[in-house]
Amino acid sequence: MPDKITIKEIAKEAGVSISTVSRVINGSSPVKKETKEKVLNAINKLNYYPDALARSLRVGYTDTIGIIIPNIANPFFATLVRGAEDYLRSKGYSLIICNSDNAVDQEKKLFNILAEKKVDGILYSGIGDHLEKFNHINIPIVFIDRVIKDNRFSYVCSNHYKGMEDLLNYLFETNHKRYVFISGKKEIFSAVERLRAFGNFVKKNKIEYKILEGEYTYESGLINGKKIKKLPDVVVCSNDLIAYGVIESFKERKIKVPQDVSVTGYDDITFSKMFSPALTTVRQPIYEMGKISAEIIHRLLIKKDDYIPVKLFQNQVIVRESTRNPRNK
Amino acid sequence: MPDKITIKEIAKEAGVSISTVSRVINGSSPVKKETKEKVLNAINKLNYYPDALARSLRVGYTDTIGIIIPNIANPFFATLVRGAEDYLRSKGYSLIICNSDNAVDQEKKLFNILAEKKVDGILYSGIGDHLEKFNHINIPIVFIDRVIKDNRFSYVCSNHYKGMEDLLNYLFETNHKRYVFISGKKEIFSAVERLRAFGNFVKKNKIEYKILEGEYTYESGLINGKKIKKLPDVVVCSNDLIAYGVIESFKERKIKVPQDVSVTGYDDITFSKMFSPALTTVRQPIYEMGKISAEIIHRLLIKKDDYIPVKLFQNQVIVRESTRNPRNK
Repeated sequence: MPDKITIKEIAKEAGVSISTVSRVINGSSPVKKETKEKVLNAINKLNYYPDALARSLRVGYTDTIGIIIPNIANPFFATLVRGAEDYLRSKGYSLIICNSDNAVDQEKKLFNILAEKKVDGILYSGIGDHLEKFNHINIPIVFIDRVIKDNRFSYVCSNHYKGMEDLLNYLFETNHKRYVFISGKKEIFSAVERLRAFGNFVKKNKIEYKILEGEYTYESGLINGKKIKKLPDVVVCSNDLIAYGVIESFKERKIKVPQDVSVTGYDDITFSKMFSPALTTVRQPIYEMGKISAEIIHRLLIKKDDYIPVKLFQNQVIVRESTRNPRNK
Repeated sequence: MPDKITIKEIAKEAGVSISTVSRVINGSSPVKKETKEKVLNAINKLNYYPDALARSLRVGYTDTIGIIIPNIANPFFATLVRGAEDYLRSKGYSLIICNSDNAVDQEKKLFNILAEKKVDGILYSGIGDHLEKFNHINIPIVFIDRVIKDNRFSYVCSNHYKGMEDLLNYLFETNHKRYVFISGKKEIFSAVERLRAFGNFVKKNKIEYKILEGEYTYESGLINGKKIKKLPDVVVCSNDLIAYGVIESFKERKIKVPQDVSVTGYDDITFSKMFSPALTTVRQPIYEMGKISAEIIHRLLIKKDDYIPVKLFQNQVIVRESTRNPRNK
């Protein structure tokens, strides 16, 4: 069991009163220089390691950041967390991770827990509004993967609308005329943006289409893939995991991708290049976004800026094997 | 910026001295009941949330566990962390994650950082011995994914030797006679155990074989796959990521899996069932192992047990599409 040092023991070691130790640790009122030194020496002597906990009480910070994400087992978020952790570690912060499963109630609980832990800042990728909560908690927050039109809050997000638009234009140019779109949940910002791009695209080009409501999982792709009776030219999936599921469901029906139908994803998670057929998708700079979100929270803490505006990250269409390219045939 | 409440403000609000507040918070000496209530009321009034930090000072715990893993972006560790976090959250703990990239120096640093943070316990999946360090830090540690023959330390591990042996016996029964084995790094316990099983298997069955030294990554599979000039009956890979890389390198050379050569993995990470061809592999109960490691650290903390022995988790051969089964042909 850890040996925890109490204020009482430090006071005894330093030969001063408990309130004097408390004044030194909290910096709550002035202490004579030599008395302060006695206390600091006692703290040094009794602690094998610099006491980050006491230090955090003294300066008011814990050097800890919390991150709320839907699910670390989703590779998108694992890569994002890796980016954030690498940056924060280099600046002396530790990262507490919290999985919300995109449940608003759970997100609320996690905000409370992180506030209780006195984290210095929160990185938040979730669906809830919680704006009241944010006011109340009064901890710097950086939103990830959504645009917040409230300049009390910084955010890091990529341009989902433009990324999807670019993909759809590429598909249209390569002679894909009939579309099925499988969406993510309506509560998720990126899913809404990608669907919005699709809506405008079909309207503009007078396209034959069908929309299936899904969510950002492999299982949702499996289920929705089975619902597609009449094959379109392309199934546009709102993320890569859905596309994997759709392709698997087609494999079970002996439908060949891309010979019989093209399938596309979004995100370009690590496995999409390894997948067979390698997935045509839209790349988000996921690791970079995690890193930048951490950099912003660090800047908010260090420089005491209230708000750091960030431009939307650009996404990039990655053409691989899961789409037909009739121009090349 | 966060509003941090100092002891001074609480003392002012409660109308008592700073040392009285300190005595209540730290429980360092008795305080009259009505005085204590005044202080607690002041704490309640000034803090929007119960102050976990002050509470942790009082009882000597931070309700925080650290986990050191090589890389959260590897789906094996993402699933493991998810299992640990789910359990810890249910018991009121938060989890700090640390990526070591399997570098011993970095692991040492992370142990120091976690000790400074006064975490209550550490879950450790890494390669270093650090046994001296562990004595010094004096924080409960649970080793993950390796067997520790030192009953000061509990561990959670699956039976890699038996899992690999079972897989090799299956391959032998299905008429695979010539083997290439691609190993993981020698510093990693699971890699050593899997290789050891292979060594005994080829000796026992007088098998024609070749061993290539790799590491637990897709890129290592790509590189080593290219080194295989004369095709064996099967390429046995020490984990799933290596197998993905090997299959990709074969695809580039128009070598068909499993028609021309079988390929196997180990771990059964989430993507192995989605992979094409779906991967024959050995399943470790990854999520469960994360959960149990968290349960053990919790038991060590709550019951103050010094050591909880754990039996090795059993692994299971999962036959999918990446291996020929001549018995069925």
